[in-house]
Amino acid sequence: MAPTLADAEKLDADDPLASFRDRFVVPDDPGLVAYLDGNSLGRPPKATGERLAALVAHDWGTRLIRSWSEGWMELPFEVGDRLAAAALGAARGQTVVADSTTVCLYKLMRAAVAMRPGRTEIVADRGNFPTDRYVVEAVAAECGLTVRWVSSPPEAGVTLDQVRRVLTEQTAFVTFSHVAYRSAWIADLHGITAAAHDAGALVVWDLCHSAGSVPLDLDTAGVDLAAGCTYKFLNAGPGAPAFLYVSAAVQESFEQPITGWMGNADPFAMTSDYAHATGMRRALSGTPPITGLIGVDEGVRLVAEAGIQRIRAKAVALTELAVALADDLLKGVGLGSPRDPARRGGHVTVTHPDAAVLSEKLIAAGVVVDHRPPDGIRIGLSPLTTSYAELHRAMTVFAEVLTRS
Amino acid sequence: MAPTLADAEKLDADDPLASFRDRFVVPDDPGLVAYLDGNSLGRPPKATGERLAALVAHDWGTRLIRSWSEGWMELPFEVGDRLAAAALGAARGQTVVADSTTVCLYKLMRAAVAMRPGRTEIVADRGNFPTDRYVVEAVAAECGLTVRWVSSPPEAGVTLDQVRRVLTEQTAFVTFSHVAYRSAWIADLHGITAAAHDAGALVVWDLCHSAGSVPLDLDTAGVDLAAGCTYKFLNAGPGAPAFLYVSAAVQESFEQPITGWMGNADPFAMTSDYAHATGMRRALSGTPPITGLIGVDEGVRLVAEAGIQRIRAKAVALTELAVALADDLLKGVGLGSPRDPARRGGHVTVTHPDAAVLSEKLIAAGVVVDHRPPDGIRIGLSPLTTSYAELHRAMTVFAEVLTRS
Repeated sequence: MAPTLADAEKLDADDPLASFRDRFVVPDDPGLVAYLDGNSLGRPPKATGERLAALVAHDWGTRLIRSWSEGWMELPFEVGDRLAAAALGAARGQTVVADSTTVCLYKLMRAAVAMRPGRTEIVADRGNFPTDRYVVEAVAAECGLTVRWVSSPPEAGVTLDQVRRVLTEQTAFVTFSHVAYRSAWIADLHGITAAAHDAGALVVWDLCHSAGSVPLDLDTAGVDLAAGCTYKFLNAGPGAPAFLYVSAAVQESFEQPITGWMGNADPFAMTSDYAHATGMRRALSGTPPITGLIGVDEGVRLVAEAGIQRIRAKAVALTELAVALADDLLKGVGLGSPRDPARRGGHVTVTHPDAAVLSEKLIAAGVVVDHRPPDGIRIGLSPLTTSYAELHRAMTVFAEVLTRS
Repeated sequence: MAPTLADAEKLDADDPLASFRDRFVVPDDPGLVAYLDGNSLGRPPKATGERLAALVAHDWGTRLIRSWSEGWMELPFEVGDRLAAAALGAARGQTVVADSTTVCLYKLMRAAVAMRPGRTEIVADRGNFPTDRYVVEAVAAECGLTVRWVSSPPEAGVTLDQVRRVLTEQTAFVTFSHVAYRSAWIADLHGITAAAHDAGALVVWDLCHSAGSVPLDLDTAGVDLAAGCTYKFLNAGPGAPAFLYVSAAVQESFEQPITGWMGNADPFAMTSDYAHATGMRRALSGTPPITGLIGVDEGVRLVAEAGIQRIRAKAVALTELAVALADDLLKGVGLGSPRDPARRGGHVTVTHPDAAVLSEKLIAAGVVVDHRPPDGIRIGLSPLTTSYAELHRAMTVFAEVLTRS
């Protein structure tokens, strides 16, 4: 029998993270039954609004240009380190916040090719998010490499066995999403990283759907390079800057192609020759985006405070509830995500031939989800802001929308 | 005889732009005599603070992910078009706001090389801002081209004659700053663009120190490609996103290398092959940075309201006053900018062997300037926020600092 609304309310009453919802801006909106798209855009932390106001009044308004030496110059690294500790399982000095995810992936992949001279292949996932695939193809074309694509069922993701079969001594790097954007499949980050290293290849992990949702241990796993976005489970705001991770082990040989003044050894010396800076500064190109960085900082602080293990525990419970309700209430709908919670990230995708139309109807009925072509409806679950009762109400509306369709 | 403080106050009383200072956040700061670094970081418009608060409460907080279809997706183009009309002399559909200036320059230069296949040379300025030089060198190295450097006296900038001498049928593109970051020299944008075109080459103009200060007519001049930053005279905020201009004439053949989902023909189709989008969307890579874009929007709106010709007129008057006061009050200081206001942008650089130490002393005395190695002290003049009296008081302090040194 399907869990009842009372069951869901009981889960909320016992939820150790329930109070975090009050730390976010959640306006009264009678038209909104449930926001199940926090994995596309997380809600704003209240502290972000306060901090942006303080930015305008003080750091930007009063201290003006002096703020660069009084803190802004270090902000990309400080926020990166905080993120690394809170969610990435990474020691200091390996993470920086900068640019968009696309630009970060481009830098990482170009650098990875240069770090494995003579190797001619890239291993990548045909089912990965478009930006990842497009950047892989562009980097392969411009550097003269071939892409060896791995394909997997849409309701799952790449497996270690698949990767092993295509790895050769020609592989420069492999690149995958840790959590698949459609299915939420959690790839075997440890196993794939080790297999790539056995072949002498590097790994470039996309952590967009993991960071702030699924615990990571980049250092222990020996990950070389990674990037991810901050506006999903890290709640950093629309188009907030991405993050880059370059392990200490490979940092000295990491040379990214977009050589701007901020990546130079001494940005203010205005020297005539470019020299890659020491440490993560070498990953930067242009002037750090301070308003965006503030959003990342406040989002990361909330994740740190809540604790990534508690966030993961609630994500598992929320996705279990979503799967149970989908099974029991949603006629004609399939499961587009792994049934095993250990292999499933922070969202659940359900499938239906009319997914596009259904998504529109759900949104019109106040249940905000994401349509993912061709047949996926993605139910995003943000442990810091999504309640079990909210999810239950949403699934009830979903059942009604299906009945009327 | 040097203009007196009373003379400066008279100029303020007659200044048609004087009231614009009230549109900015200008806190009472007894320690600040004068802010002469608005060409490094402009002051915050009050409207930006209000708009960021509204973003958090409404567009991000209430509408959430729906804001992407309700306006955010078009914001990079709308703000670009507003900027184009207000300050660039460019028709709609050729300007977009995105990324950092460094990343934009990289995209433009890579695209320019691809648009002139077989050509083997880039013409660039040895005295240009570091990012420009570093990106030129990186693009030349990775694409197998040679840089033909033009050098010019530090107190001036590149001339048409110099450029003509190095242009050949091998030139893929020439790239210069319209207003030099040290000297404020205004390059002959029309002449150099025409000369490059005569040689079959493209132009890539850096407009960082022009946009919002010196009127531009990119369309009339036939400029192909340009980029610039927004946190200087456009007052968009620290690290706010840059802008890219790609003329309608070359847009269809413009193919930039960082191929992300936002530059794809249909970002949400999640298609398997990348196809450069129609129009300026093809210049985008990752998700647009909305908090930064809001700052650009409000800064541009103020420039539009004030009028770029009135801004330029006041910039000329301010720099004339700065030069007159430097001549009369500052012993042992040279002029590092053109004396002819027609060749001088919105700042004045003065030179002194002890420029580094003097800059620190000036800042400690409440006169915020920029040191530009080796011997430059840059006096930035922002017509919307700098008053003549403020400049006069600053130059008086400068004279006192020199006397005590």
